[in-house]
Amino acid sequence: MKIVEQIKYPIKQEMELFEEKFEEAMYSKVLLVKRITHYIVRRKGKQMRPMFVFLVAKMVSNGDFKEKTYRGASLIELIHTASLVHDDIVDDSNRRRGFFSLNALWKNKISVLFGDYLLSKSILLSCDNEDFDLLKIISNSLKEMAEGELLQIEKARRLDITEAIYFDIIRQKTATLIASCTGIGAASVGAEQEEVDLMRQFGEYIGIAFQIKDDLFDYTDAKIGKPTGIDIKEKKMTLPLIYALNNCSDKERKWLINSVKNHNKDKKRVKEVIAFVKQQGGIEYTVSKMEDYQAKALELLKKYPESTYKSSLILMVNYVIERKK
Amino acid sequence: MKIVEQIKYPIKQEMELFEEKFEEAMYSKVLLVKRITHYIVRRKGKQMRPMFVFLVAKMVSNGDFKEKTYRGASLIELIHTASLVHDDIVDDSNRRRGFFSLNALWKNKISVLFGDYLLSKSILLSCDNEDFDLLKIISNSLKEMAEGELLQIEKARRLDITEAIYFDIIRQKTATLIASCTGIGAASVGAEQEEVDLMRQFGEYIGIAFQIKDDLFDYTDAKIGKPTGIDIKEKKMTLPLIYALNNCSDKERKWLINSVKNHNKDKKRVKEVIAFVKQQGGIEYTVSKMEDYQAKALELLKKYPESTYKSSLILMVNYVIERKK
Repeated sequence: MKIVEQIKYPIKQEMELFEEKFEEAMYSKVLLVKRITHYIVRRKGKQMRPMFVFLVAKMVSNGDFKEKTYRGASLIELIHTASLVHDDIVDDSNRRRGFFSLNALWKNKISVLFGDYLLSKSILLSCDNEDFDLLKIISNSLKEMAEGELLQIEKARRLDITEAIYFDIIRQKTATLIASCTGIGAASVGAEQEEVDLMRQFGEYIGIAFQIKDDLFDYTDAKIGKPTGIDIKEKKMTLPLIYALNNCSDKERKWLINSVKNHNKDKKRVKEVIAFVKQQGGIEYTVSKMEDYQAKALELLKKYPESTYKSSLILMVNYVIERKK
Repeated sequence: MKIVEQIKYPIKQEMELFEEKFEEAMYSKVLLVKRITHYIVRRKGKQMRPMFVFLVAKMVSNGDFKEKTYRGASLIELIHTASLVHDDIVDDSNRRRGFFSLNALWKNKISVLFGDYLLSKSILLSCDNEDFDLLKIISNSLKEMAEGELLQIEKARRLDITEAIYFDIIRQKTATLIASCTGIGAASVGAEQEEVDLMRQFGEYIGIAFQIKDDLFDYTDAKIGKPTGIDIKEKKMTLPLIYALNNCSDKERKWLINSVKNHNKDKKRVKEVIAFVKQQGGIEYTVSKMEDYQAKALELLKKYPESTYKSSLILMVNYVIERKK
């Protein structure tokens, strides 16, 4: 059995039912919306986020499942999909193929409106059902996601990023939504605030490890067997590079900054930067940081008795770090 | 005294204080966000929407003002600004100057994220203060705004719009937010559900009249003294044209549809379409519809005793219809 199937096993039925409920949650009478919705449902990814919601809800409640958990998972998945759709807004629509196969003329306009539509549906779902505790959890994440991305753009322009700012960015742009998954999983089955907070912390650790792993693919893509260098092209400075910058001579630092600033489209130069970062030990350092967060996440599960849900969560934490893409 | 100053007079202090509170509501520690926020505060428009919130709150409560009303006004203005910012996403960033004077490379990306940031701040503001009644009112409008715009795009592609669909679009894309202003104004001072609904209806009528007026500018711009024809260029079929389509021969209808479909960039042809619509009485019909909604809105104010707030609201309803831009 594939690892993802193995993780899903104890919540297989819930995940199947969730698919229907998620499609319902996107429902609109507008034809154009229906068509895009249909496309999204077909194109669904691994659905990591609803899996976190269901597994935590099950673990915390010893398998006692509530309808509210489905709404929590839909709330998260609506917001995650909205962020993917909005991430697809580009400044030159011909340069990149995006989330939708939409006619280029309307592409950005429809993407922004459709993302807004999904966001509004998520808020409406919670308001209609008075799931205000879930809405409180997610509303802060929503803000942090947008703020984290804007902070990253600011830093890509100024190239003055430190390790602390790097962690701030990835906590905001990625980890906060996974923290909401695990927090909402607990809240949806009526957990006390303390346990909700603990589960939020659990998700945040996972999310940080997840984003570090993602950033490592820029240096060694396990699937294609070589670095991608996309982040450097986009002037995004991630942990391996930040470590190298903090552990080299002034002359080397100047060369690194100049490379990212002025030669980021030069493939040969990007390769040299990657080689330098590796030689400085940037990868080992980054991997060790990632493993710290993995360990912190697993530590928080210790207080729970063994269960199939807990086992799946452990598998999932490890999968985040060991995945090939 | 200018008409807008005259309308604002009974809520002058509140509007001044609101400016500070609105700036606070957008606060972020991220520099890039601060800079854009500053730009938005400087660029503020007539602030019609907060004026509606304050005037209704004052009229309904006989001047007894609550802190919650400020939050309601901020909630609305955050969402309205987010929609302006998102409306600025374009598919060819060089063709049009937009809301921000941002470097074209990052323009769309930053606009979408900044709009999302404002949206999330609005939801957070309501969640933090447990203004769930206000959030319920606005969440439906949020959905309708996105859905209305998407419906308009769908109809601009298919050119099969009827009068009923036209009213559906403008109710959703424009009137729903003004209905939320007036509804939230009432709810923020503790009005009963029945009165909140009445005030929502009042705002919806105003919003429909407002959008009809806006659409009329395409045929006669009172300020520049001639038609703009922008809607026709963008294949948006509004009430004057829809009326003409329903009241002409089959041959003329074919010519009209073909003009909008295939000759919408041809200035001469657009002028001919406008002339035809006028000749068919499309303008008179549209103006009479607009005046119907103006009358319906004013009718709903009759049950309130005279007050400076009510007088301002009457002025405002009339201003919506008589404004020059």
